[in-house]
Amino acid sequence: MNGFITADDLSAGDRVELGHLTLSEEEIVAFAEQWDPQWFHTDPDAAAGGHHGGVIASGIHTLAVLQRLCVDGIYSRWDVIAGRGFDRLRFTAPVRPGDTLTGSVVVTDVSLDDARGRVMMDMEMHNQDSVTVVTTSMTVFLWRRGHGTAAPGR
Amino acid sequence: MNGFITADDLSAGDRVELGHLTLSEEEIVAFAEQWDPQWFHTDPDAAAGGHHGGVIASGIHTLAVLQRLCVDGIYSRWDVIAGRGFDRLRFTAPVRPGDTLTGSVVVTDVSLDDARGRVMMDMEMHNQDSVTVVTTSMTVFLWRRGHGTAAPGR
Repeated sequence: MNGFITADDLSAGDRVELGHLTLSEEEIVAFAEQWDPQWFHTDPDAAAGGHHGGVIASGIHTLAVLQRLCVDGIYSRWDVIAGRGFDRLRFTAPVRPGDTLTGSVVVTDVSLDDARGRVMMDMEMHNQDSVTVVTTSMTVFLWRRGHGTAAPGR
Repeated sequence: MNGFITADDLSAGDRVELGHLTLSEEEIVAFAEQWDPQWFHTDPDAAAGGHHGGVIASGIHTLAVLQRLCVDGIYSRWDVIAGRGFDRLRFTAPVRPGDTLTGSVVVTDVSLDDARGRVMMDMEMHNQDSVTVVTTSMTVFLWRRGHGTAAPGR
């Protein structure tokens, strides 16, 4: 009874429009230098002459943006236990400096056991030109109503 | 003829042992504050009283570590065009502060077209106790021999 959304409160078909986030070239390069240092992510000069015609964001960076939008838009109000994983994660178009990414989530399945529920969702993000840049299905475990240990103080 | 490994050089069954990387609590919290600000990733005190008994790394952080190990161990020597995506990505055990993560990759399929090849791989990482923390299948596109535009100067 902590006011958070539990597995009991979700159903297949529930849809949430997420917020948006814009990536600068500096952010794309800085993320990739740490986690995905391939030249087409980290070297604007080299990338300008390469296949993509400029740096593109690491797919991991793109997924991190989607996760952040999900936290801000849904998980911060859900009684989450942990994420289980992603299925059919596809980087469907390059993410370039200055792109503004906007996401959406549709619940596709909720299955309940004694204390927990497994929630499956289809997710996508698109850029300012309505080009889809990533699609995936994500599975997360939530507490059922009355079972959340959640954060102390909740 | 740039000395990099092309799609022609890879076959199903090829196996690569990746390096390792250790995550501190400070790194786990800092990554999550930016990309996955859920309390069980960002608040050690609250998390100590929660389901996981302490902070656990964001799954996105775990995947970022795997990607970095892949760049250092394989992609930096491969003529990569871009990653296509991940399938059946599963976070199979919590990653905790101080865990040292070590990865491995096995090529499962190579399919060639005129200029490019699609390379599918099974990947995993395990911790210092040999507990597997993430498993996935990843697909990446590589240039075929003689077709790489690759980085200027390569």
